[in-house]
Amino acid sequence: MIIVMLSNASKAAIDRVQAEIVRMGSTPHLSQGKFRTVIGAVGEEGKVDESHLASLEGVEKVVPIMKPYKLASREFHEDDSVVEVGGGKSAFGAEVPRVKVGGVHAACIAGPCAVENQEMLQRIARHVRAGGAHILRGGVFKPRTSPYSFQGLGMEALKWMRQTGDDLGMPICVEVMDTRQVADMESYVDCFQIGARNMQNFDLLREVGKTRKAVLLKRGLSASVKEWLMSAEYVLSQGNRGVILCERGIKTFEDSIRYSLDVTSIPVLKQWSHLPIIVDPSHAAGKRDYVGALALAGMAAGAHGVIVEVHYCPSEAQCDGPQALLPETFKELMGQLRQIAAVLKKEFADVGETVAN
Amino acid sequence: MIIVMLSNASKAAIDRVQAEIVRMGSTPHLSQGKFRTVIGAVGEEGKVDESHLASLEGVEKVVPIMKPYKLASREFHEDDSVVEVGGGKSAFGAEVPRVKVGGVHAACIAGPCAVENQEMLQRIARHVRAGGAHILRGGVFKPRTSPYSFQGLGMEALKWMRQTGDDLGMPICVEVMDTRQVADMESYVDCFQIGARNMQNFDLLREVGKTRKAVLLKRGLSASVKEWLMSAEYVLSQGNRGVILCERGIKTFEDSIRYSLDVTSIPVLKQWSHLPIIVDPSHAAGKRDYVGALALAGMAAGAHGVIVEVHYCPSEAQCDGPQALLPETFKELMGQLRQIAAVLKKEFADVGETVAN
Amino acid sequence: MIIVMLSNASKAAIDRVQAEIVRMGSTPHLSQGKFRTVIGAVGEEGKVDESHLASLEGVEKVVPIMKPYKLASREFHEDDSVVEVGGGKSAFGAEVPRVKVGGVHAACIAGPCAVENQEMLQRIARHVRAGGAHILRGGVFKPRTSPYSFQGLGMEALKWMRQTGDDLGMPICVEVMDTRQVADMESYVDCFQIGARNMQNFDLLREVGKTRKAVLLKRGLSASVKEWLMSAEYVLSQGNRGVILCERGIKTFEDSIRYSLDVTSIPVLKQWSHLPIIVDPSHAAGKRDYVGALALAGMAAGAHGVIVEVHYCPSEAQCDGPQALLPETFKELMGQLRQIAAVLKKEFADVGETVAN
Amino acid sequence: MIIVMLSNASKAAIDRVQAEIVRMGSTPHLSQGKFRTVIGAVGEEGKVDESHLASLEGVEKVVPIMKPYKLASREFHEDDSVVEVGGGKSAFGAEVPRVKVGGVHAACIAGPCAVENQEMLQRIARHVRAGGAHILRGGVFKPRTSPYSFQGLGMEALKWMRQTGDDLGMPICVEVMDTRQVADMESYVDCFQIGARNMQNFDLLREVGKTRKAVLLKRGLSASVKEWLMSAEYVLSQGNRGVILCERGIKTFEDSIRYSLDVTSIPVLKQWSHLPIIVDPSHAAGKRDYVGALALAGMAAGAHGVIVEVHYCPSEAQCDGPQALLPETFKELMGQLRQIAAVLKKEFADVGETVAN
Repeated sequence: MIIVMLSNASKAAIDRVQAEIVRMGSTPHLSQGKFRTVIGAVGEEGKVDESHLASLEGVEKVVPIMKPYKLASREFHEDDSVVEVGGGKSAFGAEVPRVKVGGVHAACIAGPCAVENQEMLQRIARHVRAGGAHILRGGVFKPRTSPYSFQGLGMEALKWMRQTGDDLGMPICVEVMDTRQVADMESYVDCFQIGARNMQNFDLLREVGKTRKAVLLKRGLSASVKEWLMSAEYVLSQGNRGVILCERGIKTFEDSIRYSLDVTSIPVLKQWSHLPIIVDPSHAAGKRDYVGALALAGMAAGAHGVIVEVHYCPSEAQCDGPQALLPETFKELMGQLRQIAAVLKKEFADVGETVAN
Repeated sequence: MIIVMLSNASKAAIDRVQAEIVRMGSTPHLSQGKFRTVIGAVGEEGKVDESHLASLEGVEKVVPIMKPYKLASREFHEDDSVVEVGGGKSAFGAEVPRVKVGGVHAACIAGPCAVENQEMLQRIARHVRAGGAHILRGGVFKPRTSPYSFQGLGMEALKWMRQTGDDLGMPICVEVMDTRQVADMESYVDCFQIGARNMQNFDLLREVGKTRKAVLLKRGLSASVKEWLMSAEYVLSQGNRGVILCERGIKTFEDSIRYSLDVTSIPVLKQWSHLPIIVDPSHAAGKRDYVGALALAGMAAGAHGVIVEVHYCPSEAQCDGPQALLPETFKELMGQLRQIAAVLKKEFADVGETVAN
Repeated sequence: MIIVMLSNASKAAIDRVQAEIVRMGSTPHLSQGKFRTVIGAVGEEGKVDESHLASLEGVEKVVPIMKPYKLASREFHEDDSVVEVGGGKSAFGAEVPRVKVGGVHAACIAGPCAVENQEMLQRIARHVRAGGAHILRGGVFKPRTSPYSFQGLGMEALKWMRQTGDDLGMPICVEVMDTRQVADMESYVDCFQIGARNMQNFDLLREVGKTRKAVLLKRGLSASVKEWLMSAEYVLSQGNRGVILCERGIKTFEDSIRYSLDVTSIPVLKQWSHLPIIVDPSHAAGKRDYVGALALAGMAAGAHGVIVEVHYCPSEAQCDGPQALLPETFKELMGQLRQIAAVLKKEFADVGETVAN
Repeated sequence: MIIVMLSNASKAAIDRVQAEIVRMGSTPHLSQGKFRTVIGAVGEEGKVDESHLASLEGVEKVVPIMKPYKLASREFHEDDSVVEVGGGKSAFGAEVPRVKVGGVHAACIAGPCAVENQEMLQRIARHVRAGGAHILRGGVFKPRTSPYSFQGLGMEALKWMRQTGDDLGMPICVEVMDTRQVADMESYVDCFQIGARNMQNFDLLREVGKTRKAVLLKRGLSASVKEWLMSAEYVLSQGNRGVILCERGIKTFEDSIRYSLDVTSIPVLKQWSHLPIIVDPSHAAGKRDYVGALALAGMAAGAHGVIVEVHYCPSEAQCDGPQALLPETFKELMGQLRQIAAVLKKEFADVGETVAN
């Protein structure tokens, strides 16, 4: 930590800062320049309280040197983490395949935005399985900006998800919105999804951190990479190491596009953290015409996979129809994604023989 | 709702859109220009599903005309709402004063960032009461970006808040973070605070919407005014009409300041909605030197009050010390705020005789 | 300047950085912590090339400590600068009044967006003079986003501006867009305006810096405060000390408002720089209903005045009609601004006896 | 154009709007809903003045339907434009190769950030030519945020650029900053570069629009896609059809990365416009470690090429050293870019036999 003093800071103020650093168990290093005095407290950053030092008289600003996250950092875990989604027996007794995400392993998560009924779910699931998806997605609790919009079908729909995943040999990934849902959902899901608007719902992060299911953590709509990794740290700090990050587009000044998929975050994340990262081109684009280009861009930037929405009849979807890919487009996109992955020395597992539609 | 067709949309596509509008119970109005066809469905916007229409073939975009919020809108409630905080008996049997916020009534909420112990709370409370604050604030559950930071003292600290408020004749405003806390907190607080990071924690909004305590709803760090009002709508839709909005600074590209207090949102909100709005200059500024200027700017832009953090010894605060005002600065600021309020034809109630420190 | 080394930086890399600092004429201070090595080069920041050091092997990042601007800084000039607009004889021989902006002196610049004809200009000028404005504004070269929009009437209109200002006893402020216009305009204007989109047109900044007329420098639509002061530095570095900064709203994610007036920049600027700062509520708001609230907010945040657009018949204006205030609204606003200024211990000069409309 | 009336607009106000639309030569279409009246003027958008209508009494907002740009739009030119850079004889008499950008043709522009001396330029140029670059870049007038930074070597350096390009058989692309430079530069360059900070320097756009050299138009740091296309329209409207767009990263709230490369803009642009688009990963990243990932992401999103900075010894560069690629890294990257281009059905031309370093 570097403490920059105001140009007119008194000797007493400088002494006080040094004394506080000693009191906190660290060692101050004084650099007195012509115009400024700067005090370093580099050794044991964890012990030093940035906010406290910033409050002291004569301090202009405090510049942290160490990253505030630990378990999520490359320093803590040098190699890429590989997170496994699925494995073991499902609540209905089926063997759930184990899908790897991270390192050289890329994966595709696909399905409908929301589960609307069992028949529709099965139909879409067969399509995405046939197209090459590894994990089935589908919302049962929907975070909608309007209280008057469709809010999801809840636990019954979750059971359909489990059953459909079991039938097709796919682990399932389902969004959780409320701490009170975690316990009930835990026995059915293979991967909890935390939505962008809940990225800093700290109680929810802690609660899924206590489970041993994978956690797909979407980036908040205006979260910095550092804040995102701090949210991952909440999950990791509870003992759950199965965090997959998901870039889903950020808010910018651009008003003719829904969100901007921030591919720049991908190489940055990979330098700072060992956690796997996938992209969600559907929510970023908000419009099916743009989904393919963004999916390819994400993979080319180094992502470990994608999560996309697919519907055989988007105009019937109860939410986010405009961004759902048609099954045939999805299949073509998977072909291109495999080629891009190969350029980047990554690999999508083969999903085995396709299932009849 | 206005449906803009692509320049090359077929007659069949145009007919389909019109048929769908009829099916949803509304009436289409066709305008065929030289280059574009535009279809209006203005009458009964609520019935028409924007997302569905946007999914249809040949549609370029759908432009909503009506505001998506109802209960929060000026159309629903033409006059300014006046929200009352407090009133009735406290959990400890004291008579709680009733503080009005909205219309011509301005109020000041002040106190420590977090409650750290009972003695410190009482001391700060006496200071803010003496300085002219109407409502006491103090966090007992703290949303911290790091899982390793101080997370608040919980229910015990809430009881200290209640007791201190009762002793000084001040209603209390306390942040709630988790749906599971609402029931326990309801008997102690006069006003629930929803933090910026929880602005779209929809389950939490619904849960406080079921209580009959006032709700201070902070704006999300990158929420548009429309999204913010939609979150207010979640609370209102459960029957709770006591929503006070709070602008607390937004994220922008500026990297040398914490947040930018978005005063522009104030006249916009007052045109679109009847709900009262206050500003939080402390969290926007992040630095005590800027708090006064932002508080005054918020009032001058038309806010119904401020919420500020005060500490008699900021360098001892466990969180956000750098932004806490000293008691004497707070008192001076209140004097200037009263003058600005007078220019705007608003009034801060007199808090009566001051209490000994 | 602080150089933070990567956690795995070699001793050779650390030695190289120190050697380079010595070579540049500064002195390195080494702080070796448990996890990181940090090297300070605080003394003579000007001599040290940040970009060069950041390119060296083993360097994670370089944190500048000193501000990159000199002449614009409080350190260079501790007291508020007071800029004088006008004075001397006009090109047409009239005595031009001297208007002070900065320190305790506030001023109001008002007039039409664009000069459309001589009669309209005179009529609006009389209105704003009667309402209390000190300086007359009016565009003759208009920066329009579309090449097909009205681009201004050029030098002829500038002469009308000069004549009208002379007739009413008001200095004039006119936007310059191109380096080739500076010489011609210099003999007519009292204050050059640099538009937001030209804030980093460095050749233009240098060119007006060579004149001795005041320069109203608008903030770029997404310029940080630091970048803005660096642009001021371009003007100052040419010997022109008459820079007045103008906050005019910034781009944010908010899509239902044109720009957000960034009042937070005002106390920050006043801490970092001695230059006067005014606000432009008209361009920020884009809508006359919001102009008053933003003007008051800017003054309350500490601005030294406002620049506003006024038109007696906004629906006839060739540009930006929706944001022009009516003359009577302008007059009322000036009354409120004077009251706010008094609270802040600033003063708008009296414009003397009003002129007949 | 759609005019949305306020819910309480009078019949007189509605009649006035309709009369104005007729006066402007268009036809109003009235849609009277239960809550709102909406008036369409779809036919001849060009004739109708949005700003004027928005100023009329009773109008809530005006929603444009047509795009404001014409020559840049897909409607105007349905197929992808292919821009040719180079061709003809250079000022020094050499035959300049013709490089195609757009449609299936991808190209790579590479070279130093700034030209610092002739020897260094030649050395870097040989490297990028050997690595597969098609066009040579190099700055001779540098837009620097600080007036105290290196500002470029001017016309002499431009002649070195021309000579080096001629020697290696590469067209050259050089930034122009000031209208007064255009005439002198025109005889030497094959492609003018307009920097991000000059994207709305309208006089400069017009001036290069009058030449017949290609124009590489960088996106402003916070320009919307629409504003960017409007700037292209300025160039096109002067008769110059050789515009190549260049996405170079935008400003967002993220403070640990320089800019975010906005790949989302690529599919959007390609839907709205026929103009070719390339990406600049060097300026977006600001750090060489991220350049490769961003270049690949841009190509995968559909770009027609890249512009990158290369230096054989980045720590000696006078500007932007930290983002320059080493020659060997550049060569590897070109290999990967060719593979990505193949997946997208695009092709980088072969630059022929390599030149000795």
